[in-house]
Amino acid sequence: MSAEETGRVEAFSDGVFAIAMTLLVLDMKVPRDLAQGQTLAQALAGQWPTYLAFVTSYATILIMWVNHHRLFTHIGRWDDRLLFANGLLLLGIVLVPFPTALVAEYLGRAGQTTAALVYNGTFIVIALCFNLVWKSASTNDRLLRADRNPDAVRHITDSYRYGPLFYVVALVVGFVSVTASLVVNCALAVYFALPSRTAAVIGHAGKAHQLPASHQGQARPSDRPPG
Amino acid sequence: MSAEETGRVEAFSDGVFAIAMTLLVLDMKVPRDLAQGQTLAQALAGQWPTYLAFVTSYATILIMWVNHHRLFTHIGRWDDRLLFANGLLLLGIVLVPFPTALVAEYLGRAGQTTAALVYNGTFIVIALCFNLVWKSASTNDRLLRADRNPDAVRHITDSYRYGPLFYVVALVVGFVSVTASLVVNCALAVYFALPSRTAAVIGHAGKAHQLPASHQGQARPSDRPPG
Amino acid sequence: MSAEETGRVEAFSDGVFAIAMTLLVLDMKVPRDLAQGQTLAQALAGQWPTYLAFVTSYATILIMWVNHHRLFTHIGRWDDRLLFANGLLLLGIVLVPFPTALVAEYLGRAGQTTAALVYNGTFIVIALCFNLVWKSASTNDRLLRADRNPDAVRHITDSYRYGPLFYVVALVVGFVSVTASLVVNCALAVYFALPSRTAAVIGHAGKAHQLPASHQGQARPSDRPPG
Amino acid sequence: MSAEETGRVEAFSDGVFAIAMTLLVLDMKVPRDLAQGQTLAQALAGQWPTYLAFVTSYATILIMWVNHHRLFTHIGRWDDRLLFANGLLLLGIVLVPFPTALVAEYLGRAGQTTAALVYNGTFIVIALCFNLVWKSASTNDRLLRADRNPDAVRHITDSYRYGPLFYVVALVVGFVSVTASLVVNCALAVYFALPSRTAAVIGHAGKAHQLPASHQGQARPSDRPPG
Repeated sequence: MSAEETGRVEAFSDGVFAIAMTLLVLDMKVPRDLAQGQTLAQALAGQWPTYLAFVTSYATILIMWVNHHRLFTHIGRWDDRLLFANGLLLLGIVLVPFPTALVAEYLGRAGQTTAALVYNGTFIVIALCFNLVWKSASTNDRLLRADRNPDAVRHITDSYRYGPLFYVVALVVGFVSVTASLVVNCALAVYFALPSRTAAVIGHAGKAHQLPASHQGQARPSDRPPG
Repeated sequence: MSAEETGRVEAFSDGVFAIAMTLLVLDMKVPRDLAQGQTLAQALAGQWPTYLAFVTSYATILIMWVNHHRLFTHIGRWDDRLLFANGLLLLGIVLVPFPTALVAEYLGRAGQTTAALVYNGTFIVIALCFNLVWKSASTNDRLLRADRNPDAVRHITDSYRYGPLFYVVALVVGFVSVTASLVVNCALAVYFALPSRTAAVIGHAGKAHQLPASHQGQARPSDRPPG
Repeated sequence: MSAEETGRVEAFSDGVFAIAMTLLVLDMKVPRDLAQGQTLAQALAGQWPTYLAFVTSYATILIMWVNHHRLFTHIGRWDDRLLFANGLLLLGIVLVPFPTALVAEYLGRAGQTTAALVYNGTFIVIALCFNLVWKSASTNDRLLRADRNPDAVRHITDSYRYGPLFYVVALVVGFVSVTASLVVNCALAVYFALPSRTAAVIGHAGKAHQLPASHQGQARPSDRPPG
Repeated sequence: MSAEETGRVEAFSDGVFAIAMTLLVLDMKVPRDLAQGQTLAQALAGQWPTYLAFVTSYATILIMWVNHHRLFTHIGRWDDRLLFANGLLLLGIVLVPFPTALVAEYLGRAGQTTAALVYNGTFIVIALCFNLVWKSASTNDRLLRADRNPDAVRHITDSYRYGPLFYVVALVVGFVSVTASLVVNCALAVYFALPSRTAAVIGHAGKAHQLPASHQGQARPSDRPPG
């Protein structure tokens, strides 16, 4: 059962993630018409909402890619249901540059609450889609690898259950302060970046020191030489 | 006979599909100059043709990718004829963002019938190109895998025969109502998303319960452990 | 000696080819401000130089990808020299959307000869880079696969020798007629699309009927089952 | 221990490098409104800062890709720390089109020192991220391949130590002359393109003639036939 089985789904998804992340830079515009007496440095500094939105969206897509990568470490086969769940997830990823540009444009102006609503709404939908992908693969272990780590699988199921709720919190915060909402999003990115390792420590407790240094090694023990 | 043989054709095609899907977002413009008394929410809601065109095109390209993926499950080798048929197909895919932007701009205004004509015409051409790719591979089983499923191959041949006709129907509907034409396109996307599984059930009837859960498993029985 | 050895160079190149081809669509602008009494159909028809330039550039990049694919069928290893020759080639590919937009903008107007000069100049440089890549791999068979087909290798060496010259012809034609120059480019695309098969027939003459149906099969006889 | 283990990280990174390189072309604008009496050739020639910035950025990203490729020849496993270090590195790569456009716009005008500062600052950050990636993999040989070349590993560690410093020099030069700063960047690109081979010659001295022609061959001796 080789890693190739879901290879093309992963490669296609990687392409979409990579392009969505890279297209974010297109919203960083070079200031062209400087106001009287304004320096380029001032004009660039005045674009800080663009940079904040860029970094938040980049970090979020990156962590989503990392999580996608993690999920597919455990998924060994595909069927139509997985392909469409994954396609719906990628629709959310592809959309990210739009709400990012919206927030960058309206942060600090009338309309910023609407912009934050659309921004956080997109991430709620993406979090729901991650659940859809994981359910389509893990229900009754339908498409999981034979040599998966059951603790890691259970941990993913647990942590995904509450993912969309956390993004709802970010959305509600957005009604009070849009900047605070972006900060909550960054915090969520950090949270979703950490759980797998933390979980491994908590879930395996006494065995933690025996865990191999790499997840990949953990997932495919049979491929590795004893040393 | 490894999956690598057509690996680079698939990887290149995946890249084109992924980029075309992702570039669709570039046509979703942030409303910048709000009219007097207009809120951002109203401005965003007023862009609904853009969202409808985006979702229709995204869904159509996604299903086309799924079908491309399905075809190449059965194709084991390549030659120049396949490369050029595939290149022509990708030309159609690459074009999709243009008619999509056209429909989004002209829906509900003078010129919308022309826009729908170009939009549906593009999909007819793509459906014809899918036939070209499949014929170049399946005529006399030229480039098919030795371990292909003959029923699945026959089913693809049958369902592709009428594909372009269905898109002609969508085009004709476009003369009456452009919105209805987009809906027909969405319905066609669903139709092309379903056939393979439905066909498996119909074609194998009594054997359906023995089918493995995944298509991939179906395509490469020899790679799989008995359990 | 697996196909993986140059796998990452090929994957990276595929990405660049795929993106350059897809970005071409960004120059196909939706007509937004129709002149008084002008229909959308007329406005679209008036953009024919854009479509001609798009199709020519797409076809040229596609055929260059096919040729790149062919070259790397014979190349089994990489070193720094190959990586940089390939990087220079990709620089040419990445540039293609710029002269394409130039020709589309200036065809039929003052400046069209300059535009054609830049357009054809780009393709001359790309043809020279193809020679550089092939030389860096084939000189003394440095990086070629052990199981390469010597006739196919010799044929590539022969046909590449004159490639840049042909593009010089297209450039010279451009001084007389820019449209004719684009047609010559299309003809060159067809010429570079054909040679390998034609050569196989000519070079192998009496053995032609024994050639396997696929090039890939030709390149890796040892991977294939006898049937 | 197959090359697949870090395959998806490499494929994802390749996608980001390829897209960032290709997006650079979007800043090369077709001159549309020629001044009275100005030819297209003059208008194109007047855009030389754009071409200089394009070529410098392309060459820099290309060499960074080559170095990324080199690093991962020695890296055989991944963990979360490597994924995030690599994600931070790619953030720098994704940003490159922005400072490139900035330099192209402001070279020779007020604001050019600020533009050069941002441009060189980006490359300092990228050089620091390369150190981060390499440290996360090479500290205690955590994620390195068992069959790595220790001399090559040591050489990378040595040459990366001073990388960020060199880019600080380019930044300082930018305060005196922005064009000179771009030239220093080009020189640095050449420097980072060379070291591995030079190092092989210096580090192995008497053994240099025995080195295989390809790095890949060097990295995976066990995959290669004796001849």
